[in-house]
Amino acid sequence: MTRSSPCASCKLLRRRCADDCIFAPYFPSDDPHKFAILHKVFGASNVSKLLQELPVAQRADAVSSLVYEANARVRDPVYGCVGAISSFQNQVSQLQMQLAVAQAQILCIKMQQTH
Amino acid sequence: MTRSSPCASCKLLRRRCADDCIFAPYFPSDDPHKFAILHKVFGASNVSKLLQELPVAQRADAVSSLVYEANARVRDPVYGCVGAISSFQNQVSQLQMQLAVAQAQILCIKMQQTH
Repeated sequence: MTRSSPCASCKLLRRRCADDCIFAPYFPSDDPHKFAILHKVFGASNVSKLLQELPVAQRADAVSSLVYEANARVRDPVYGCVGAISSFQNQVSQLQMQLAVAQAQILCIKMQQTH
Repeated sequence: MTRSSPCASCKLLRRRCADDCIFAPYFPSDDPHKFAILHKVFGASNVSKLLQELPVAQRADAVSSLVYEANARVRDPVYGCVGAISSFQNQVSQLQMQLAVAQAQILCIKMQQTH
């Protein structure tokens, strides 16, 4: 049996959209871009394999994270979302340093007050 | 002309490794795992297309970030390296809050000292 309207994935791949299509719950026909970008970066068959290996309850989260990663890779083909990770790492180091300085300052003031 | 020893990619894909093989500079034959994981997550043809669209000088960085992303996806099939991004986001918010508290504390102490 086929759906009356194929999902965005089956539309792009020009294939029959079966009732148990693994993509259909996450790629509605009115949002073709979401699947197109995933297909471009990971390939439809890799995404399908990855989803099949996951319990149904975790597939929506996996699709979201894959779409996030694919969008980041299209925006920045060299670093993708690894660019975000390294800028977060820098931000964390900087904040940890600022916090250490502030805490040392508090300690100094308190020691001055007791003497 | 073919190389005396095919690169890890051509070995896995069972094809001739030409002198101008796009993978050879980044996937030496003694490290088969690096390409295998990239092929599993992104697919060899997607990686090849992505590299071809980049200037040669940026390809090594692109390979590193793709390998990082692919390893993260294999370790955590649901969230991949997006998991790291969201935990960094939490860490940054927490540090920003701690820093704001420390700075407010310093301000309070200084105000007490002037009065």
